[in-house]
Amino acid sequence: MNALEKLTELFRRFPGIGPRQATRFTYFVANMTPAQRTLLAEAIQGLSKNISLCVECQRLTELQICSTCRLCLDESRDNSQLLLVEKDTDIRSIEHANAYTGKYFVLGGSIPVLDENPLSRFRSEELKRKLQNESSTLKEVVLAFSATPQGEHTTDVLKEFIHKHSPTVHTSVLGRGISTGTELEYIDDETLRHALKNRVE
Amino acid sequence: MNALEKLTELFRRFPGIGPRQATRFTYFVANMTPAQRTLLAEAIQGLSKNISLCVECQRLTELQICSTCRLCLDESRDNSQLLLVEKDTDIRSIEHANAYTGKYFVLGGSIPVLDENPLSRFRSEELKRKLQNESSTLKEVVLAFSATPQGEHTTDVLKEFIHKHSPTVHTSVLGRGISTGTELEYIDDETLRHALKNRVE
Amino acid sequence: MNALEKLTELFRRFPGIGPRQATRFTYFVANMTPAQRTLLAEAIQGLSKNISLCVECQRLTELQICSTCRLCLDESRDNSQLLLVEKDTDIRSIEHANAYTGKYFVLGGSIPVLDENPLSRFRSEELKRKLQNESSTLKEVVLAFSATPQGEHTTDVLKEFIHKHSPTVHTSVLGRGISTGTELEYIDDETLRHALKNRVE
Amino acid sequence: MNALEKLTELFRRFPGIGPRQATRFTYFVANMTPAQRTLLAEAIQGLSKNISLCVECQRLTELQICSTCRLCLDESRDNSQLLLVEKDTDIRSIEHANAYTGKYFVLGGSIPVLDENPLSRFRSEELKRKLQNESSTLKEVVLAFSATPQGEHTTDVLKEFIHKHSPTVHTSVLGRGISTGTELEYIDDETLRHALKNRVE
Repeated sequence: MNALEKLTELFRRFPGIGPRQATRFTYFVANMTPAQRTLLAEAIQGLSKNISLCVECQRLTELQICSTCRLCLDESRDNSQLLLVEKDTDIRSIEHANAYTGKYFVLGGSIPVLDENPLSRFRSEELKRKLQNESSTLKEVVLAFSATPQGEHTTDVLKEFIHKHSPTVHTSVLGRGISTGTELEYIDDETLRHALKNRVE
Repeated sequence: MNALEKLTELFRRFPGIGPRQATRFTYFVANMTPAQRTLLAEAIQGLSKNISLCVECQRLTELQICSTCRLCLDESRDNSQLLLVEKDTDIRSIEHANAYTGKYFVLGGSIPVLDENPLSRFRSEELKRKLQNESSTLKEVVLAFSATPQGEHTTDVLKEFIHKHSPTVHTSVLGRGISTGTELEYIDDETLRHALKNRVE
Repeated sequence: MNALEKLTELFRRFPGIGPRQATRFTYFVANMTPAQRTLLAEAIQGLSKNISLCVECQRLTELQICSTCRLCLDESRDNSQLLLVEKDTDIRSIEHANAYTGKYFVLGGSIPVLDENPLSRFRSEELKRKLQNESSTLKEVVLAFSATPQGEHTTDVLKEFIHKHSPTVHTSVLGRGISTGTELEYIDDETLRHALKNRVE
Repeated sequence: MNALEKLTELFRRFPGIGPRQATRFTYFVANMTPAQRTLLAEAIQGLSKNISLCVECQRLTELQICSTCRLCLDESRDNSQLLLVEKDTDIRSIEHANAYTGKYFVLGGSIPVLDENPLSRFRSEELKRKLQNESSTLKEVVLAFSATPQGEHTTDVLKEFIHKHSPTVHTSVLGRGISTGTELEYIDDETLRHALKNRVE
């Protein structure tokens, strides 16, 4: 395997990348100047030195004081709410929507429907500790998962987990209903049932 | 224009049909037996004799007693709720979801955002009369429109119209949030805001 | 089943039409004026009186002199070429491309790959008669079928059929190669092989 | 800009990559082990040492004897044919189709339709030199470009260029016609004209 094929192999493991696009990436990199390639290689290596998990919310982040991320250090955010997401990028989506001001926790995974060892699928020990540490201030845990079978199963498992380890805390889930842009004509039955049940003034 | 072209012209006016599919339809009909063609022609003509608007909900329907449709005659349905839709087929979608047991009213259109004569865009006289007739029993009007700019504008206009002609009646709209199958990663900001705001236990 | 459902049933049999679009068609027709519905019904019925198969090329067409269609009566067209297509609409496509001036014949079907009775799948008797009648003038039969397994199998069967019934006639097939708009990057191997083999000056 | 954002910026420049996927790539890399990151960074850096342009065909390749690539060194390949492509990956596609045994030359670009300085868009000096060096053996230059306006313009410019610098050499282009899988019904007029004109026995 030559140097071009070796790099193509590595790009093929990137999420959503097939053989054709992996090859295009390799030729894109091969056509860079040596200086540009060095920049890219250093940016990749740089993550090892500069990035680690926040001890509070478990997301990957630039190191701050005491291994804690910017969002967890922010005292203006509401300590009574904790929003659980599956992965780091979900925090970005929610921050971008600009409609939540509480704290976060990254589970690091979701739970397949018939999984036999669900506790191994998410950061259960870290979450347990977090719930204990915050027990005096925490009032609501928001479960923000996909509206898919796996997302719904994750919701069920996490609800039980939270009620067991933090019985006085309320749990909530994202509202279900019609999404922006949806035409009534193309809506599925389940969404329509949610939209009718969750109708608002 | 020959007989084939004439029929193709008529099929081209069908909703969502381009020239290619109109031609395919014509050849499909041309390849029917004369008896099958007669059946189709009679089914089309038959609508003139058998179908009319229900005087109560204004949907197109098979004639029943007193020009009133099956749903409006159904005494087991809840008279205190009236659900407004843009068009007949929306009733089918909602009945299919099996989550609403009140009455219906078909507006016969929706209102474009900058329209100067909104009252001409829907059955405003019929709706006014309906609201007056039902004033003793009606408690809630559900506005079930698409989550599009035109649907939202129709909601705004209709809310005002109802509050003017039936001030004691409540209005509600379909719940907004994440639809079945939506992954958190691909959600738009507005839907995420609704989903966070409308979160449920 | 009421009149609306009956018509919806008939529209569902149209090529490429699912339940949702069949319903939309029905409401489209139901919202026509009675005069418009009569026009549509008469255009459908009209095909029984005005349309029949051309005795020469077997396509559905407006009746002309001696049950022969306009293209077959056209003396400016080249009698030495006969182009075979699967269905009527293929003639339209080829006429539209404006690159063929010979005669046509509509097979009325194509032949599935493992079919046991291929002669029953196309107008074999009519084609045999046509080849005999034209034996003095006919020089080339063009087989114009899809570049799919079924189209290629139809080509094979028809080549053999023609060589049996008209041994002196040449057969030809549509050129294979890259289609307009195709980028080299997304071409399949087989097409590329054809394009390399059939390369032109 | 932190380390994660810096890497996301670099991934955004990759061909076909939007902001969402660039972010996913960054988190994918961030979740690698330090050893895996080192492997990726070294594979990228490695291209600077191991890869260069072949002096004969101008493609990027692993270094071989005399800065010449494996294909150009292969004496079993036909020296009388030279196939011109726009970019490196096109050679892969053609080799994969396994239907060409001559030599290659990579232009390094294609020529936009109204471009004022077409000679600057491809390796015109290198191609001129190549044509001169091979003048005793070369008989045919195959122009293998996309069937798009830009590809066709590139063909026109290159034909002229070759006839000017190597007047006795023949040029040819990829055959046009219907591609594998194409149904006659959905073919465009231009492709159908090519397919009729280039029909084969």
